[in-house]
Amino acid sequence: MTVSELKSIEISDMKNIALGGSFLGTGGGGDPYIGRLMAEEAISKNGPVPVLDVGDIEDDALIIPVAMMGAPTVMLEKLPRGTEAISAVETLQNFLGKKATAIFCLEAGGLNSTIPIAVAATTQLPIVDGDGMGRAFPELQMVSMTMGGISACPMAMADEKGNSIILNTVDNLSTEKFARVITVEMGGAGLIALYPMTGAEAKKSILRGSLSLINSIGSIIHSEQAANRNPADRLAHDLKGIRLFEGRVLDVDRRTEGGFARGNCIVQGLGDCSGTQIKLEFQNEFLIAQTQDGIPKALTPDLICLLDLETGQPITTEQIRYGFRVIVFGLPCDPLWRSKQGLELVGPRYFGYDFDYKPIEQLNAVL
Amino acid sequence: MTVSELKSIEISDMKNIALGGSFLGTGGGGDPYIGRLMAEEAISKNGPVPVLDVGDIEDDALIIPVAMMGAPTVMLEKLPRGTEAISAVETLQNFLGKKATAIFCLEAGGLNSTIPIAVAATTQLPIVDGDGMGRAFPELQMVSMTMGGISACPMAMADEKGNSIILNTVDNLSTEKFARVITVEMGGAGLIALYPMTGAEAKKSILRGSLSLINSIGSIIHSEQAANRNPADRLAHDLKGIRLFEGRVLDVDRRTEGGFARGNCIVQGLGDCSGTQIKLEFQNEFLIAQTQDGIPKALTPDLICLLDLETGQPITTEQIRYGFRVIVFGLPCDPLWRSKQGLELVGPRYFGYDFDYKPIEQLNAVL
Repeated sequence: MTVSELKSIEISDMKNIALGGSFLGTGGGGDPYIGRLMAEEAISKNGPVPVLDVGDIEDDALIIPVAMMGAPTVMLEKLPRGTEAISAVETLQNFLGKKATAIFCLEAGGLNSTIPIAVAATTQLPIVDGDGMGRAFPELQMVSMTMGGISACPMAMADEKGNSIILNTVDNLSTEKFARVITVEMGGAGLIALYPMTGAEAKKSILRGSLSLINSIGSIIHSEQAANRNPADRLAHDLKGIRLFEGRVLDVDRRTEGGFARGNCIVQGLGDCSGTQIKLEFQNEFLIAQTQDGIPKALTPDLICLLDLETGQPITTEQIRYGFRVIVFGLPCDPLWRSKQGLELVGPRYFGYDFDYKPIEQLNAVL
Repeated sequence: MTVSELKSIEISDMKNIALGGSFLGTGGGGDPYIGRLMAEEAISKNGPVPVLDVGDIEDDALIIPVAMMGAPTVMLEKLPRGTEAISAVETLQNFLGKKATAIFCLEAGGLNSTIPIAVAATTQLPIVDGDGMGRAFPELQMVSMTMGGISACPMAMADEKGNSIILNTVDNLSTEKFARVITVEMGGAGLIALYPMTGAEAKKSILRGSLSLINSIGSIIHSEQAANRNPADRLAHDLKGIRLFEGRVLDVDRRTEGGFARGNCIVQGLGDCSGTQIKLEFQNEFLIAQTQDGIPKALTPDLICLLDLETGQPITTEQIRYGFRVIVFGLPCDPLWRSKQGLELVGPRYFGYDFDYKPIEQLNAVL
């Protein structure tokens, strides 16, 4: 697809970014509502947020990624106060004894593509066009920076009560494990600033252009909706995506466990898919789509997005309800995730599913 | 009792301190074995540790208390590597940007009276004669410093793998809650440095003279043992303690849960106590002693110590086994704990027991 480069983020851009982020959030990454409001308020106060290509950043600049961590189900009920993201960044800056040059999105997602913009606007810093996943994943070591050998630590966490914590762990998987239990103790969600990196490190390790891509996806969905077309066809064409299935949600099994929203949902086919079912497994994000016979149709790290059958609006794992009429939409992941190291970090077996990864294009090849 | 003031700690003092610490540990505070070895090795390398009265410390000095946190059952199996206590102190010093003037014991106990001496010897710092509890308690807000308005934070935690974490929480109870889940994630135990305080703050808030007292208690137990006398009578006389019960351990129910060793043990009477039972409830430390009819004989914060019936050797909650012949020994706590604020922190109701606190002297008054 033709992605127009985002140069700065105005209030009017936030609706597209929130929507495009939700789409790439593959069911996770948080509901965008509160993040969008926070970003719009901060931009209205401090002006637009400059968006920088990482190539234009000094090698010795300090880039700080920001995110909300926790179960999306909890984030819906435990609204951020707005100051804890800033507190996480300030805690990290104070620990490092250095100020950030730019803010960065750890992942793509409704909340996690908008909160960093709110932070950038509030701190009057630019934001780097990119992210660490090209989608959302449930654990914080699952970023391109881990593959680039960059430590998640020092990492700062903050909650709405005023608690803050700094982690220095021996590896990024340990960071995830400690941060997860702290998140649970924070009430299920906390704001985090981590993977502090230089411009030189970022150039070698981030996924570039994610904010521009998110903005374009949001723009397509909105324009197709305005023309009363379901955006799925256009997205399938532009993003080389696949309409995997359409049907009605028959069953949802969801629990908040260990700081994650875990579960699965069964979709009963409609139209061409009548008489068949598809089962989606999720852990914050959708990870596996398989038929009732256990034949995989899409496997993590490829993207599985659930869209409203009429409007194409992305549906998060905490929003799914019995009776929703949906499209199951699949998308190839960034090639980085298909490497051996990538699949060890985010492949089906890491999450305990008994599948060898196969690219979504192969799983759904027309014979 | 006459307590001789400890002026410095030599290798030869460690056996008394380890034993006296175990006695005041009231079943918790960790097994002294590893802490004693570490302290002896560090003293043999760096020389004796000066012991300072807090009155002799400059008002602007930095005093750092040190302890091992976790379930004593776990500490027995997960030996400290020796470097993690130093790592906790260094992490805290680096965060504060200031070096410690002296080390301090957070609590009295076998491990937690000896580990700080190992740290003091290794870092070649003096240790302050005192502690924060006058005994051991299971949670880290349960110190005289909390009553003195001193924050537990910044607090540093370190484990044997090399992970370190800095906490800044809104109150000391929150520090406990976060530190506890982190301790569990560290494998059940971690080394901590917390309640950094100035000399002026320490003068107003610590319990004084604990190391000298511990040393004297250890010395009494050893000399009575050497004379083939059970030390309980002499300790009862010197410490205004009470021999509450003697008998044989009939049943022990112990589980490691939420980072604590929780449970109870039933002792069947022997000798004068024949035909009756006493039940001890513990959470790391012994907290309640009651008859089979539910009549309290000793209530937290008064001290309940379990001693071997023949040797008077203190028995920790993780060591109790079926068949042990024991003395249940009670001791009045520091008067500070009997205040309203003290009982809110460590009284029976805080731990969920349905008893109003009554001093051990009243519960066992001869009518």
